[in-house]
Amino acid sequence: MVTASAPAKVYLFGEHAVVYGEPAVPCAIERRAQVTVEEREEGVRVNLQDLTIDGFTVEYDSSDDDRPDVDVSDSLVDAGMGYVNEAIEQAREAAGAPEAGFDITVEGDIPLGAGLGSSAAVAVAAIRAATAELGVELDAREVAARAYQVEHAVQQGEASRADTFCSAMGGAVRVEGDDCRTIDGVDNLPLVVGYDGGAGDTGALVAGVRDVKDRYDFAADTVTAIGDLVRQGERALVEGDVEEVGRLMNFNHGLLSALGVSSRSLDSMVWAARDADALGAKLTGAGGGGCIVALDESEDALTALSYTPGCEDAFRAELDTEGVRIE
Amino acid sequence: MVTASAPAKVYLFGEHAVVYGEPAVPCAIERRAQVTVEEREEGVRVNLQDLTIDGFTVEYDSSDDDRPDVDVSDSLVDAGMGYVNEAIEQAREAAGAPEAGFDITVEGDIPLGAGLGSSAAVAVAAIRAATAELGVELDAREVAARAYQVEHAVQQGEASRADTFCSAMGGAVRVEGDDCRTIDGVDNLPLVVGYDGGAGDTGALVAGVRDVKDRYDFAADTVTAIGDLVRQGERALVEGDVEEVGRLMNFNHGLLSALGVSSRSLDSMVWAARDADALGAKLTGAGGGGCIVALDESEDALTALSYTPGCEDAFRAELDTEGVRIE
Repeated sequence: MVTASAPAKVYLFGEHAVVYGEPAVPCAIERRAQVTVEEREEGVRVNLQDLTIDGFTVEYDSSDDDRPDVDVSDSLVDAGMGYVNEAIEQAREAAGAPEAGFDITVEGDIPLGAGLGSSAAVAVAAIRAATAELGVELDAREVAARAYQVEHAVQQGEASRADTFCSAMGGAVRVEGDDCRTIDGVDNLPLVVGYDGGAGDTGALVAGVRDVKDRYDFAADTVTAIGDLVRQGERALVEGDVEEVGRLMNFNHGLLSALGVSSRSLDSMVWAARDADALGAKLTGAGGGGCIVALDESEDALTALSYTPGCEDAFRAELDTEGVRIE
Repeated sequence: MVTASAPAKVYLFGEHAVVYGEPAVPCAIERRAQVTVEEREEGVRVNLQDLTIDGFTVEYDSSDDDRPDVDVSDSLVDAGMGYVNEAIEQAREAAGAPEAGFDITVEGDIPLGAGLGSSAAVAVAAIRAATAELGVELDAREVAARAYQVEHAVQQGEASRADTFCSAMGGAVRVEGDDCRTIDGVDNLPLVVGYDGGAGDTGALVAGVRDVKDRYDFAADTVTAIGDLVRQGERALVEGDVEEVGRLMNFNHGLLSALGVSSRSLDSMVWAARDADALGAKLTGAGGGGCIVALDESEDALTALSYTPGCEDAFRAELDTEGVRIE
């Protein structure tokens, strides 16, 4: 039996635009998915536990069609099952064991579909654990490459390497197309996350951005502007200029709003953090609901978010320099 | 004694970017400033009444330094006095009567500094009334040209022709640099205005946009993107495609947010309107506080705004095809 874990992430800059080859800078945070794998004779049994902050437990056998009875949408459950199943396929392929059976338990405290990369963290940890259980030790980059294939399959091609690479490597990273790099020297950022309790429909949001980008030249220019902003943001991050990082997060949020991926509750949380003198605040991930990330050295943004209607949970989220690991 | 009136306006598209030579499309609405002028022997006496929705009355004599005792900031009062004084100068010049004295009463129901062009409406109506009182009949374009000089003087060069041209001509107009045109065939738009009771500092907001534009290439590109959006918006308006107009208003709001000119209450009102199925919603004018404009054929956005915390007043604002006129 092997347990591996991998961190959640926030996007400091560049979500959505990364789909079109622009760079993005996600950053791993100290919320992790743990996946425990034990080989069994045949078939796969999956137990999903506590993957939202609220907490829920589901147990189902992927060999039958029983729907788990949980307080999340079917599409999220389908997606969750899809990520685990595809990760198992990747592990079998890496180990040359196409018939291997597994008992799998997934645990964690990452809200599902809320912009914190729960699916990438699960895929990364599952591949690391399942391959290790079969006696194959993959390094973090190999895990990242296979986890990307998982997201690519489940999200029907609309995936970037950013989430999986960040979760596998830890810390802040920069991803531009197939070019994935760690950003050295970033080991502390005063991050605060606000969570509205909801989840956006990533597929629909990505499709919506594609629609406006195809329809309007100025929307395509907006995507390009995000890319230019990310390059500036990476420089500020490397130089340790957190005020500049905050300003650029604010600007990035506006460009994402223009592209149609913000929501009432996300904007409400963003303003709560800004009005509490956060250095910057933006939605993180696909948007439409879920999480915002703010940069604040005091406790004020955290407190303000705690009292903001529509913010179900708010927490400090220290940067996690450690990527996927065996527990 | 002559009374002239001129309409307030909302920006359907293009505020801020218009300062940098991009096109803008403002639209006159059925809220008007009335200016009554009576010649007197010498000096100028000004009576300002009811220029906010809440209503306040000030009376002061511009020949002394008494501050009117009103519930608005000194800077707004200074600005109000500045617009009237400069308008009088323009009227004297147009009539070749540099020594003419006036009793002036300004009335209206346009919130001050809230993005509805109160200053332009006052300048336009004051020039029309004061010149008529001196026996000179200026046409709307001449009034617009002189009212622009007023804004240019008071706002220290940071003015566009859009507000004054729209207020003088009525209807929807298009302004790009010095090129001012009416947009024919637009005589009805289901506009709704939400007002947070506040006012942004136009000078600081314009300076803030200039700062980010000078600092970041992607911010300059954002200004350019607004210009491209305006051109698309003008086409949609001429074609009567209100759904497209709404979508473009939403996008325009996001780009303005990126440039840093939205606020918590403005975003809150924008979302209230959108969640009530408005076709689109955006801040109007300089931002930072003040008004949003939504496009909604039902009464839902109006009702939703009425119940939105932070929205002090909400009202239907029919497009006003009539510009400056003698009452």
